[in-house]
Amino acid sequence: MTELTKILLDETEMPTQWYNIVADLPEPPPPPLHPGTHEPATGADFSAIFPEALIAQEMSQERYIDIPGEVLDVYRLWRPSPLFRAHRLEKLLDTPAKIYYKYEGVSPAGSHKPNTAVPQVWYNAQEGITKLTTETGAGQWGSSLAFACAQFGLESEIWQVAASYRAKPHRRTMMEIWGGKVHPSPSEVTEFGRSLLAQDPDHPGSLGIAISEAVSEAIEDPKTRYALGSVLNHVLLHQTIIGEEALLQLAKVGDVPDVLVGCTGGGSNFGGLAFPFLREKLKGNMNPVIRCVEPTACPTLTKGQYRYDFGDTAGLTPLMKMHTLGASFIPEPIHAGGLRYHGMAPLVSHVYNLGLVEAIAIPQTECFAGALQFARSEGIVPAPEPTHAIAAAIREALLCKETGEEKTILTALCGHGHLDLASYDKYMSGEMVDLDLSDDVIAAAMKGVPVIG
Amino acid sequence: MTELTKILLDETEMPTQWYNIVADLPEPPPPPLHPGTHEPATGADFSAIFPEALIAQEMSQERYIDIPGEVLDVYRLWRPSPLFRAHRLEKLLDTPAKIYYKYEGVSPAGSHKPNTAVPQVWYNAQEGITKLTTETGAGQWGSSLAFACAQFGLESEIWQVAASYRAKPHRRTMMEIWGGKVHPSPSEVTEFGRSLLAQDPDHPGSLGIAISEAVSEAIEDPKTRYALGSVLNHVLLHQTIIGEEALLQLAKVGDVPDVLVGCTGGGSNFGGLAFPFLREKLKGNMNPVIRCVEPTACPTLTKGQYRYDFGDTAGLTPLMKMHTLGASFIPEPIHAGGLRYHGMAPLVSHVYNLGLVEAIAIPQTECFAGALQFARSEGIVPAPEPTHAIAAAIREALLCKETGEEKTILTALCGHGHLDLASYDKYMSGEMVDLDLSDDVIAAAMKGVPVIG
Repeated sequence: MTELTKILLDETEMPTQWYNIVADLPEPPPPPLHPGTHEPATGADFSAIFPEALIAQEMSQERYIDIPGEVLDVYRLWRPSPLFRAHRLEKLLDTPAKIYYKYEGVSPAGSHKPNTAVPQVWYNAQEGITKLTTETGAGQWGSSLAFACAQFGLESEIWQVAASYRAKPHRRTMMEIWGGKVHPSPSEVTEFGRSLLAQDPDHPGSLGIAISEAVSEAIEDPKTRYALGSVLNHVLLHQTIIGEEALLQLAKVGDVPDVLVGCTGGGSNFGGLAFPFLREKLKGNMNPVIRCVEPTACPTLTKGQYRYDFGDTAGLTPLMKMHTLGASFIPEPIHAGGLRYHGMAPLVSHVYNLGLVEAIAIPQTECFAGALQFARSEGIVPAPEPTHAIAAAIREALLCKETGEEKTILTALCGHGHLDLASYDKYMSGEMVDLDLSDDVIAAAMKGVPVIG
Repeated sequence: MTELTKILLDETEMPTQWYNIVADLPEPPPPPLHPGTHEPATGADFSAIFPEALIAQEMSQERYIDIPGEVLDVYRLWRPSPLFRAHRLEKLLDTPAKIYYKYEGVSPAGSHKPNTAVPQVWYNAQEGITKLTTETGAGQWGSSLAFACAQFGLESEIWQVAASYRAKPHRRTMMEIWGGKVHPSPSEVTEFGRSLLAQDPDHPGSLGIAISEAVSEAIEDPKTRYALGSVLNHVLLHQTIIGEEALLQLAKVGDVPDVLVGCTGGGSNFGGLAFPFLREKLKGNMNPVIRCVEPTACPTLTKGQYRYDFGDTAGLTPLMKMHTLGASFIPEPIHAGGLRYHGMAPLVSHVYNLGLVEAIAIPQTECFAGALQFARSEGIVPAPEPTHAIAAAIREALLCKETGEEKTILTALCGHGHLDLASYDKYMSGEMVDLDLSDDVIAAAMKGVPVIG
């Protein structure tokens, strides 16, 4: 092989601005609404939990936003991340397609999440905030926030869903290595947590409960704010550095994607990769098919409705217009914990609704089968979430094998699976099953979604 | 900060030759001896367990050996590995020293071990071998060999020390992801294993026993060979790509090390980084202090004797002249499992005996304290083995703080700690203790070492 395997950027070539897709959309996205009045939410509605700079980014119409120098300095610990040409997977599949994957597992926490954790912590620090709270499930987001807080000397306090806290002690250890204070949720720390533990001392917890605990703790202290790892506009904004780098890297080898596939949970990894390419598509510079990939057990885009709904189960957040399965929907315990979210980022939902991107759902056993092919050819063991993106890339590559088309496929490997190996164990031992979601379950959850206007 | 954080090489700049330090030493290293005759061992003495090409490398006097093209293709999945300037650690320590670390955790298996696993598998494949056997403790080497076998379509069969097999199931999973067949050792597969299980069905095993099982299985089948992950000359040879890359990377930023520190278990990571720099030192191009760092619980160089001894506990290998604590010595169960070896690579022992390199021993709690400082500043969570190198680099940097010297320190971060987080848990909870080794224990083990000549 003479063609490059890794297309690298020197850190001097790292993009210095994030890209805000709102500036280029044919229609503006519907605004979030105040849950009480159903009027468009204002900055003040968010100010108890987020710092001003992030609220401004959340509502910004600016096309590009400068990345602060101190954030760039931390990004340099792992960015620019490599873009790989999957020569060995292509050979295994015997496909004429070219497959590229942008790998975010090189970050300290092992996923794309630090791309937003670092600026979120930095902006909070600029406003005198000394502690951040958050929730985490499997722990990718919590560990990313703890890492970022360690970089700027802030405290981090993390509520981890109790079932995960007990089943995955290593992610907790990772958070503690970076100085994070971790509670199982429900916890004795908050009133809400204590009330739940009084009912059930072994309560397994949920993300919705953990969010409520983290938010309530942030509201109580003026030096404390809350941080969210996906869904919101400013989070997707920070992740666009992934796609901006990938554009530069593909240009280095003179390639343009025909198909772009990314996994979608809250939507930040997908938006991060896809939005800079969508900009180029809207400008007429390229014409890739852009496709979201979600689990069949949590098919937010393919089976959910585009409605105003709450971001959390308890109904504390503003109402956001998004594809949703209903805020009370509790997805099955699939292994891609990061994709178990009832809603979808409003920006991703909006571009999907406009027909600018497609969506498909893939069952988890197909995803793990693809991940094994990937690991045995490319070496890297993927996290359960991006196995969906890999399975979709493999589907496309096998289609090319049938048709003989030499398509260029781009995907994002948003994290490694070093702390998720038990999932592989379950797959290889034949114990993993696909969890079909009945329409009745979705219909029941959708009943709780408020009717607006 | 304007100075680079990561000094990268493009894969077109990757070295294409390994460096054999034997060609440049002022005295040749003492040869291995046949255990029966005590005469210098010949290639034939190794041919039942290793392929011809690797035996030739083991005995080679050539200064440079070409890396085969297909090996370079696999290396490109992660090589050249990055050289980091530890700006943020330097700031935390408030030191005038510059600290660089070469990071090998970017490999699929997460350490430097694939650097030799890949060529070992390739050379075996060229000679028609279809299966490789090996032993593994914590699992770094076993997973590297399984990964390499997956790349070239060979089977891999791995005996993992039973205590580790049971305590660290995730490394086993990783080996299985890459197609490895893993047995707890002692196993029912070999006669030796069965005999031990008959005595104790819950036998915890040891590396020595696992080696015996893997070797005996290799000897039985002409299409099967055995692979070793450290100690031998050809293994250290393959690892020199680490140091060759680091030389190119430091040259890019115009720096030369004043001090080079590396952790030593079997010696392959240390030799891999240090030997190319030792060549430059011998040529008079630079004059770094080169220092081995070992655990106080297994102080092979600092407390062992330079004697002919067996490489394994059962006494099956040729006799090698090396620093040894006695082949019957069982080190305490410290967390840096990869440093728990009674001997030291003959080549590292030889250059130490010649006074070309120094050695120190550091207790594990100091190592983990340094690792926490490192993780909170640089982000990466180190494996327990390189925490020794980090602690030594920190010692040197703090000395510079006292003296005001602006020394350039180079070290190797030979792996990440994603599968070793339980060690950090133990350290942070205050349960980790330093395991002092009494001179009586060493003296007892040394009694079993054969007296030669």
